[in-house]
Amino acid sequence: MSEEFLSELRSIVGAAGLLTERSEMGAFVTDWTGRFTGSALAVVRPASTPEVAATIKACAARGVALVPQGGNTGLVGGSVPISDRPAVVLSLARMSKVDDVRPGERTLRAEAGAVIDTVNAAAEAHGLRFPLAFGATGSATVGGALSTNAGGANVLRFGNARELCLGLEVVLVDGTVVDTGSGLRKDNTGYDLRDLFIGAEGTLGIITAATLKLFPQAAVRWTGFLSLASLESALAVLNRLRDEAPGDVEMFEYMPAHAVDLVCKHFPNLRAPLAESAETGVLVEIASTSARDAMEENGEPRLNAGIFEVLERLLEDGLVLDAMIAQSGQQRSELISLREHVLESLQAEAAWYHYDIALRLDDVAPFLAAVRARLQAEGLASPSHVIGHLGDGNLHFSVTRDDTLPRVHDVVYGLVREMHGSFSAEHGIGSAKRSDLERYKDTGAYRVFVDLKRSLDPDGLLNPGVMVGPRDSAEAMRVRGLVTLP
Amino acid sequence: MSEEFLSELRSIVGAAGLLTERSEMGAFVTDWTGRFTGSALAVVRPASTPEVAATIKACAARGVALVPQGGNTGLVGGSVPISDRPAVVLSLARMSKVDDVRPGERTLRAEAGAVIDTVNAAAEAHGLRFPLAFGATGSATVGGALSTNAGGANVLRFGNARELCLGLEVVLVDGTVVDTGSGLRKDNTGYDLRDLFIGAEGTLGIITAATLKLFPQAAVRWTGFLSLASLESALAVLNRLRDEAPGDVEMFEYMPAHAVDLVCKHFPNLRAPLAESAETGVLVEIASTSARDAMEENGEPRLNAGIFEVLERLLEDGLVLDAMIAQSGQQRSELISLREHVLESLQAEAAWYHYDIALRLDDVAPFLAAVRARLQAEGLASPSHVIGHLGDGNLHFSVTRDDTLPRVHDVVYGLVREMHGSFSAEHGIGSAKRSDLERYKDTGAYRVFVDLKRSLDPDGLLNPGVMVGPRDSAEAMRVRGLVTLP
Repeated sequence: MSEEFLSELRSIVGAAGLLTERSEMGAFVTDWTGRFTGSALAVVRPASTPEVAATIKACAARGVALVPQGGNTGLVGGSVPISDRPAVVLSLARMSKVDDVRPGERTLRAEAGAVIDTVNAAAEAHGLRFPLAFGATGSATVGGALSTNAGGANVLRFGNARELCLGLEVVLVDGTVVDTGSGLRKDNTGYDLRDLFIGAEGTLGIITAATLKLFPQAAVRWTGFLSLASLESALAVLNRLRDEAPGDVEMFEYMPAHAVDLVCKHFPNLRAPLAESAETGVLVEIASTSARDAMEENGEPRLNAGIFEVLERLLEDGLVLDAMIAQSGQQRSELISLREHVLESLQAEAAWYHYDIALRLDDVAPFLAAVRARLQAEGLASPSHVIGHLGDGNLHFSVTRDDTLPRVHDVVYGLVREMHGSFSAEHGIGSAKRSDLERYKDTGAYRVFVDLKRSLDPDGLLNPGVMVGPRDSAEAMRVRGLVTLP
Repeated sequence: MSEEFLSELRSIVGAAGLLTERSEMGAFVTDWTGRFTGSALAVVRPASTPEVAATIKACAARGVALVPQGGNTGLVGGSVPISDRPAVVLSLARMSKVDDVRPGERTLRAEAGAVIDTVNAAAEAHGLRFPLAFGATGSATVGGALSTNAGGANVLRFGNARELCLGLEVVLVDGTVVDTGSGLRKDNTGYDLRDLFIGAEGTLGIITAATLKLFPQAAVRWTGFLSLASLESALAVLNRLRDEAPGDVEMFEYMPAHAVDLVCKHFPNLRAPLAESAETGVLVEIASTSARDAMEENGEPRLNAGIFEVLERLLEDGLVLDAMIAQSGQQRSELISLREHVLESLQAEAAWYHYDIALRLDDVAPFLAAVRARLQAEGLASPSHVIGHLGDGNLHFSVTRDDTLPRVHDVVYGLVREMHGSFSAEHGIGSAKRSDLERYKDTGAYRVFVDLKRSLDPDGLLNPGVMVGPRDSAEAMRVRGLVTLP
C-alpha cells in the first residue's frame, strides 16, 4: 500500500473517510456471522457519489479491487474482502441521506448507506411505510438490501427489495454514473438496467442511491394460526384468503408442530396456539388499509367479520381443521414471536446447515416427499425443522453439519434443479454459494452471467470472489467452504 | 440468397416453415401501421426451440441478420426488416402452444407465438384471467408483448408485461438456450436475466417461451366518471380510492372535456357522462375478486356501498366536483367506449404526431403547465388532446405534423429529460425512436446499453437497426424518420 495511493484516497474522501489501521478496520473485514473474514488495504468511506466515482477510478488505475459494503449483515459472505486480490472496502455508510419524500407520489430517495429502519421512519412521518421486513433492518442498508435483493416476511404482499425500487443511481467501474430512471411507474426507453444491478451483489457496479416505493400503513390487522388438513391444501387456503378476504395477506408462514414445539421448549413463556398440535400449522396475517375495515361492528373490526366468513367455509370444506385468532395485541405478538424464535431455538440445539430453497408453489409438498425418499434411499438423514415462507414457495430446513453434508447437498440441489427450483431463494450467492451457482444453475444462464461480468467489469475489480469472475486461491476457497445461515 | 442457404433453412424448419416468394412475405415485411416496410431474404417460421436455435446458427454462420416477429403490431418499427443488412424475418407464429396451466399456482406456460387472447382464454377455462389489455391483444403475441414490455389499460393494477412474467426461455445469437428460471416467486441465484430480455425488443436474444402469472377473475366491478377539482388533486383522489375502497383500482384514465367532446362529435351515439363538461374528467374502474363484495345489499353490490362512502368524503372535501356511476352493463360499456374511441376520433381530425411520455405522478400537472409555457415562448403550438393513463403518470398528447415538429420535439423531450421523465412510456424504441434514445437517454445508461448489446450480440445480428448497435444507411434512416403512433 503505497503512501502515494493513500494520500490520493485521502484527497478524495478526506481524513475522516479513510481507515487504514488494522484496529479500525476489524468491523469492516469480518461479517456479522463471524464466518467470513479477510483483509483490506484500507476502508474508504466516501460521502457523495462523485467521491465514490473518484475512489473507484483511483483504485482501478492501480488494479486494486473494491468490496462494496452496507450494513455487512449478509449471510453468504458477499460483503467482506475474502478474495486474495488486493482490495479496499468501499463502505457506503456515510452516504445515508433520505430525502425527496413525496407523500402523494408515495416515493422517497435514499442514499445507499441509509439504514432500512431509517427509511421506514421517514415514511412513517408521513403516515406511510417502507415494508421491507427482515431481522437485520436496524443495520442493513438500502444499497445492501437492493444489491442482494433482500426478501423477508412481507414478500408475499410487497415482493422482494427488487419490487420496492423504482430507480437507481449506480457507479460503474470506470467511474461513469448511471441513472436508471428515477421514480417512474412506466418507462420503455432501453434495456432494464435497474433489475440488472439489483441482486448483482455489487459485482457489476456500485449502487449509490435509489428511489423507493412507499405504501399506506395498515388501518387494521388480523392475525391467526391455522391447522390445515395437509400441506397440499395450503395453496387452496391461501388463494381463498387472498381472493375473498378483505385486505391483503401479508404473511403465510409454515409453522408445523415440530417447529412450534421446539420454540416452546426453548422459550417456555411462549405457548402453542392450538390445544392439539397442528401437523400443518400456518401463521397468517392479513392487513387492510381501509378505514372502513377498521370500523367496529359488534365490538369487532369489520375486517374480522369478512375473514370469519371465509374461514367458516374453509372449515366446512375440510381444508382448515382448526383456527386460533389473536384477540389482542398481546396475543398477536405471541404468535409472531413463535415464528421469530425458530432460528434461535434451532441454534441452541446443534450445529446445522440451513437450506434456503424455492419451488413452484404446488411443488412444495411433492418436493418434500421426494427429497425424504431419496435421502433415505441413500442412507442419509432427512431434512429436519422444515419451516418457510410458504406463500412464496420458499422453504428453510436443516441438516446436521457432518461429513455426509456434501452428499446431502447433491441430493437436495439435484432435486431442486430437476424441479426447476432455486437453491438460493432469498440469501443470494456471495462467496459461499459460488460453486453451487456454477454447478446447479442453468448452463445457458450461467454463460450469460460470465458475459455480463466481463462486459461491465472486465478486470474483475468489483467484489472479487463473489458471484462469478476470476477464481481465487485454494486458501480463499477453503475459508469459504460450505458455510451459510438462513 | 444462395440455394445452399435456403436448403439448409428448409432442412431445419421444413418446407412449410420457409417463405421465400415476395408475394408470401408481404405481411411480414410491412407492419400494421403501414409506416414501416422493408425487405427480407426469407421468412423462417420454426416450430420449436431447437429449430429456432438451428436457424439462428445457420444465419449467424453467414452473417445474415434475424428480425424476430410476433403479431407485428408494434408502433415504433421494431418488428420488420428495415435495416439495410441482409436479414430474414424469424416469425414465432407457429410456436403458439399454451400448456402447463397450474390453476392453484396461477401460472401457465406459453410459447412466444401464442396470441394474448388465446392465453387469456386458457386462463378463463380455469376461472382465471391473464390481465394484459391493449387494443391489439387479438393478434399480439406473448413474445412480442414481453419483448416490448407492453402496457395498456390495466397497468395501474397489474403492471406492465414485465410484472406478469415469472420466467423466460431465450435463445442467444450463438444458439445457446437460456432458462431464466420458470415459475418461481423467489430466486436469488445470479443476475436477473428475465428483465434483461423483457423489453429488449429482440436485440439481445430471442424469447421462445414464458411462464406467465394468472389472476382471479373479478367478482364485481364498479365503473364511474368523476369530475375532479383540478389535475393536481387527481393523485389524492387516486390514493384515497386505492386505500379505502374495497377491491382494486384497475383504471384511472384522464379524459378531459375536450377529449369527451371530440369523441362525441365523431361518434354521435356516445354521450358525455356528466351534464356539465368536466375539465378534469377521470374514468375510474374498480374491481374486486371477493364474492362478499359482489353480494347484494339493498339491491346493490356491497362494493358500491364502500366506494360510495369514499366518494361522499371526496365530494365533501371538494376534491371531486361531480360523479356519474354506471348503473348497468350498458352504461359501463358506454363509459369504456368513450376512452376506446379517442384515437380514432383524433385520426379523423388531422395528421398528428402522438407523444407517449411518463412523469412522476406529481409532476404531471407542473409538466403540462411548463411545456405549454415554453412552446408558447418559442411561438410553437401547444400540445392538444391530452389524455393518458393518469394513474401511471403516462400522458399521450398530439401536435400537428408539420415542419415545426423537430422544434416541438426538442422542447417536449428536453423538458421530459429535465423532469426525469420518460420519452417512451409504453411503446418502446424500435427504429423510430432510436435517435431519441441516443439523444435524450441518460448518457451513462446509454453507454451500458451499448456494452450489453456488444456483449450479447457482438456482430449485431439480432434485430439490426433497433434500439442500439451498428448504424444503418442514410436511406434506411430517412425511411424511419420521426414516425410513431400512440
